[in-house]
Amino acid sequence: MVNFCSDNVTGAAPEILEALVRANEGAATAYGEDEATRRVEARLAEVFETELAAFPIATGSAANALGLAAVTPPYGAIYCHAEAHINVDECGAPEFYSAGAKLVPLAGDHAKIAPETLDGAIMGAGVVHHVQPAAVSLSQATESGTVYRPAEVQAIAEVARRHDLALQMDGARFANALATLDCSPAEATWRAGVDVLTFGATKNGAFAAEAVVFFRPEQARDFAYRRKRGGHLFSKMRFISAQLEAYLSDELWLRNARRANAMAARLAAGLAALPGVSLAHPVEANELFVRLPAGVAQGLMAEGHRFYPWGPEESGEYRLVTAFSTAEGEVDTFLEAVRRLSGAPQEERGRASA
Amino acid sequence: MVNFCSDNVTGAAPEILEALVRANEGAATAYGEDEATRRVEARLAEVFETELAAFPIATGSAANALGLAAVTPPYGAIYCHAEAHINVDECGAPEFYSAGAKLVPLAGDHAKIAPETLDGAIMGAGVVHHVQPAAVSLSQATESGTVYRPAEVQAIAEVARRHDLALQMDGARFANALATLDCSPAEATWRAGVDVLTFGATKNGAFAAEAVVFFRPEQARDFAYRRKRGGHLFSKMRFISAQLEAYLSDELWLRNARRANAMAARLAAGLAALPGVSLAHPVEANELFVRLPAGVAQGLMAEGHRFYPWGPEESGEYRLVTAFSTAEGEVDTFLEAVRRLSGAPQEERGRASA
Amino acid sequence: MVNFCSDNVTGAAPEILEALVRANEGAATAYGEDEATRRVEARLAEVFETELAAFPIATGSAANALGLAAVTPPYGAIYCHAEAHINVDECGAPEFYSAGAKLVPLAGDHAKIAPETLDGAIMGAGVVHHVQPAAVSLSQATESGTVYRPAEVQAIAEVARRHDLALQMDGARFANALATLDCSPAEATWRAGVDVLTFGATKNGAFAAEAVVFFRPEQARDFAYRRKRGGHLFSKMRFISAQLEAYLSDELWLRNARRANAMAARLAAGLAALPGVSLAHPVEANELFVRLPAGVAQGLMAEGHRFYPWGPEESGEYRLVTAFSTAEGEVDTFLEAVRRLSGAPQEERGRASA
Amino acid sequence: MVNFCSDNVTGAAPEILEALVRANEGAATAYGEDEATRRVEARLAEVFETELAAFPIATGSAANALGLAAVTPPYGAIYCHAEAHINVDECGAPEFYSAGAKLVPLAGDHAKIAPETLDGAIMGAGVVHHVQPAAVSLSQATESGTVYRPAEVQAIAEVARRHDLALQMDGARFANALATLDCSPAEATWRAGVDVLTFGATKNGAFAAEAVVFFRPEQARDFAYRRKRGGHLFSKMRFISAQLEAYLSDELWLRNARRANAMAARLAAGLAALPGVSLAHPVEANELFVRLPAGVAQGLMAEGHRFYPWGPEESGEYRLVTAFSTAEGEVDTFLEAVRRLSGAPQEERGRASA
Repeated sequence: MVNFCSDNVTGAAPEILEALVRANEGAATAYGEDEATRRVEARLAEVFETELAAFPIATGSAANALGLAAVTPPYGAIYCHAEAHINVDECGAPEFYSAGAKLVPLAGDHAKIAPETLDGAIMGAGVVHHVQPAAVSLSQATESGTVYRPAEVQAIAEVARRHDLALQMDGARFANALATLDCSPAEATWRAGVDVLTFGATKNGAFAAEAVVFFRPEQARDFAYRRKRGGHLFSKMRFISAQLEAYLSDELWLRNARRANAMAARLAAGLAALPGVSLAHPVEANELFVRLPAGVAQGLMAEGHRFYPWGPEESGEYRLVTAFSTAEGEVDTFLEAVRRLSGAPQEERGRASA
Repeated sequence: MVNFCSDNVTGAAPEILEALVRANEGAATAYGEDEATRRVEARLAEVFETELAAFPIATGSAANALGLAAVTPPYGAIYCHAEAHINVDECGAPEFYSAGAKLVPLAGDHAKIAPETLDGAIMGAGVVHHVQPAAVSLSQATESGTVYRPAEVQAIAEVARRHDLALQMDGARFANALATLDCSPAEATWRAGVDVLTFGATKNGAFAAEAVVFFRPEQARDFAYRRKRGGHLFSKMRFISAQLEAYLSDELWLRNARRANAMAARLAAGLAALPGVSLAHPVEANELFVRLPAGVAQGLMAEGHRFYPWGPEESGEYRLVTAFSTAEGEVDTFLEAVRRLSGAPQEERGRASA
Repeated sequence: MVNFCSDNVTGAAPEILEALVRANEGAATAYGEDEATRRVEARLAEVFETELAAFPIATGSAANALGLAAVTPPYGAIYCHAEAHINVDECGAPEFYSAGAKLVPLAGDHAKIAPETLDGAIMGAGVVHHVQPAAVSLSQATESGTVYRPAEVQAIAEVARRHDLALQMDGARFANALATLDCSPAEATWRAGVDVLTFGATKNGAFAAEAVVFFRPEQARDFAYRRKRGGHLFSKMRFISAQLEAYLSDELWLRNARRANAMAARLAAGLAALPGVSLAHPVEANELFVRLPAGVAQGLMAEGHRFYPWGPEESGEYRLVTAFSTAEGEVDTFLEAVRRLSGAPQEERGRASA
Repeated sequence: MVNFCSDNVTGAAPEILEALVRANEGAATAYGEDEATRRVEARLAEVFETELAAFPIATGSAANALGLAAVTPPYGAIYCHAEAHINVDECGAPEFYSAGAKLVPLAGDHAKIAPETLDGAIMGAGVVHHVQPAAVSLSQATESGTVYRPAEVQAIAEVARRHDLALQMDGARFANALATLDCSPAEATWRAGVDVLTFGATKNGAFAAEAVVFFRPEQARDFAYRRKRGGHLFSKMRFISAQLEAYLSDELWLRNARRANAMAARLAAGLAALPGVSLAHPVEANELFVRLPAGVAQGLMAEGHRFYPWGPEESGEYRLVTAFSTAEGEVDTFLEAVRRLSGAPQEERGRASA
């Protein structure tokens, strides 16, 4: 019985649990005035090779909404892919935190925005009848499991700069994206033009920890007030920070992401080899979107495997998400079940070991 | 070196840490659709002896603001003590979550609201020029460390009912209050007329866990959307719920609170016996507000003890907060330091033990 | 020199000016507690043949935003055509008044929404991650100058009812639409399923007057507070009401609309007969969207005629709006100029009069 | 039968009605891009002897709320007198427009704020738990009919500057205040430290017209978007502007105010001479707050005179408001009625004329 529902059905990585246990000793000043929280900001500055302002936050929705609110006035427009998590899956959190900004949904293959699409959608600057272009948001990795190359981010950023938009990145799966890209954290973000990053850890091994990272610290000017007002300033902040500290130590974040990505690649390779199975998007991080032969999904679920149907019902599409904790055996068990249920010939394991 | 800054400088209770470790096994459905979250609601229903709707929330500010927003329209008035945490210490969170309601500050000794004061302040119902009376909020225990008796809550509730106000209770220190009262959780809340309770655990042994409890579940109708929209629906919710479950097991919540209260009482008794020291409010929970002779506070701080000055600078008042983890020895160490610094005769310990 | 920029470049109709002059005598109770305001509601109930709640409002944006806010929670979705005034031209007023609802833009020919399109777009009801389906908004007449038939409104309403959406109608040009339809005000609105109507007068002869009409008065429960809070409760309300009263007297509203529509039809007929000129949408009310041969628009503007280019620059499209005050001579002057500038043979007026 | 309910029960001054009639000729560009609107701003700059940014607005509540929102973040505090119109009579409009700022009510005799009171109330700057000091609002004339002298405004402004607060003035009755003060408009406002002024005309002879005047135009940077979004950008703006233009011509605004003030003074003098009648506040503009002998108010109302009881029921206080249109005869009729009903000896008019 394998659970590919999401990377958030997992618990925390052992290193992060240990860090939490260690952090539970002695007293610490509350509300983020503790040493761990300071160290997290310093560590992020090292990792990203630049001055920055960083704020631990417990959920991705809050991190995105607060980050966007820092760069978007109430009468602002935020451009994003139509399928972006902020547009579809956060029950209007960005609208709430920005006091009513408008998300402008853009089309684009594999959940990626093309620079021309963005450029063509921006309108109304300086005209009082229209919401004012304020920000563009990219998901990295995207909602289709694809990854923006630095050059792609740069091209978006060039449009953004020309129209005076801030560039926010929803990095709920930033580690998974970076593990795929052959570049530094800096190259994937501020060097490519990113202003604000939701640096996600929850899906990749933390209990509940993200950081909102401002590469232009002046944009963080009133962030602390907005965070408090949103109820997101934790009194015992050190416990969020301890998770991030462990996450950033010994490349845990990248090791975890690589493992999740490798499992996704193994799953993708196995599935792609089966007749009647197809992938809806390139598999570039830890999510797969797969079309299965009739009845196979139902068979898998009947056997106790868990994953979600995706998109409109008639699409026949399913999402499979691997995580830092996914075992090779789980992938193989799942693949065998798909093979069996789809009537594909079983891989002859005996011969392989001969 | 004793830290009496706040009950939120502490870590988590061992029982809660253990519960978290246990919860970290296997996968669980995300976003609160897990078993632990269901059990928490059921357990709260047992503890409060009534049907209720309960929602785990990670911070007290969010719990208060979301609970109030559920019963207050944007054009509503929320009556509260002028010193209430929601009025002074949450950077406008209730205004934010309610989309602009007005907090009407009321005076009252020892941070308690008298029913007549509330009654006299309510105005404008049905008149379009005025914000509309919507809710009254009580802090239990109060910001002065005092506790409302059930009859006092009832008297407030009677005014509230007459004016069609919801009654919300900020129970960040509800356990401390209940440990003082000789009554059941039900008698302290819904039987006395409370509609919505912030059931606090963070200050009393959790990492970050509260529950918003609706004793009239129909008032929770849209709570889930508001929580999500506020970024307070945790994907790995089981880790908040696991804390609450442990907190509610084996009366941990009350045991912790009794310990904190006992330490406050010991501290109060010790201080009250000293010349030149006076208490600004009755000590009924785990907070003390104390006036110290000139120079004593500075002396204590110089020795490394930590606590906050309180109120206007000229008041000479300091706040001392004990916690579930406060040791008798810490109290005694602190008392001895006060005695020494204030020139009071040292307690003759030798003789006592003779 | 003809001004076809908009129907809001006009002044007020003489009947409405006279009504204002008459209303300026004596004292009247402020804030809408006057007799004229009561009469307007009663008169609208007669005109629409039903009980209703009606609120005078001075601008169309406010009327739409307040009407929508009455039926949409902050976490709600409002479905509308992508080109709807509320989506494009009100700088986020609906988002502001609803405290952050999301407008979901729909495609559709001639700025009309098809019922299937609406049906296909509604999603997420009861699922906490998604904004909740709350309302659908139709513009009548539409932003392309077309008009929904009662049967078309009914078909939309049927989808709306099935998904528990309120149906709001932006009737900034409701009179123009009704003048085209062969039906009663009731048939065009509540009998077809409309719940809330912005009944516009400003564009059709008033100074500044609209009414928000609730056909289900229980939906207006908190409208008065929201209106006051938005700064839209006029102290000298009688002057808004006096405009509406005159507007509704002796069918002035329909007479004005018929005149504007007739001038649009005359203009459309004249233009359609010219080579190289085409109409982008059927002309069903008082707006024309016309493509002109190269250079003609520039020539017209150089001669002092005024109107706006429309849509993306490359479309070559222009909008012409007639009004209650448009004279036949103005239409003919404009048509002659187009003919001349586009090199079409002049209409031989001499012969016609011979 | 005299109506002293309010200065908003009046119609418009003849000069303003005439201006409206004149403005109703020809077409004008919509949405404030017309000549009259430009002239109003220029005229205000002359009147106030400084560069400024001015925006016509139709209601006082909107003018106050929009002006305050321009200088107050959502997490800001606005200090005002507890009885201020913005605090009591606008159903939360400032909270709405600022997206949830907090109004901090201050005490003060005769509805005036003392600088020390303001200074003592400001707290929390830079501390994330507290709303951030952002603005102070003065009503001129006040809700008790008193008037701040320029030196008093300066003293408030000095405190404001020290704490980096903007100084907003609710000038719904600014003309009445200025008519009392022996100073220029500039001295009463920006030279004394006012940043933003609601320059009221509605109560003093307009139909519905105010101007939000920014003496530091950079603070108006996003005002136009907020106004549009609030539904307060009138399409036929020229009709608001025409009222303001007439109001500012030939000192109409001051002539009207002087007349209203003179009538208030006459009324006050007459009432003060009667036994058992007392004034609750100095009469410095066009409002009187008067305590009448038992039964007198009821008698007056029974005779058809109209005015409002004021404050708590037991106060026995009534408010009388004169206006630009109040006739001497009305004042005298009213005074005679009070004399008669209170059993005071009738003034012997015959003898006086002898």
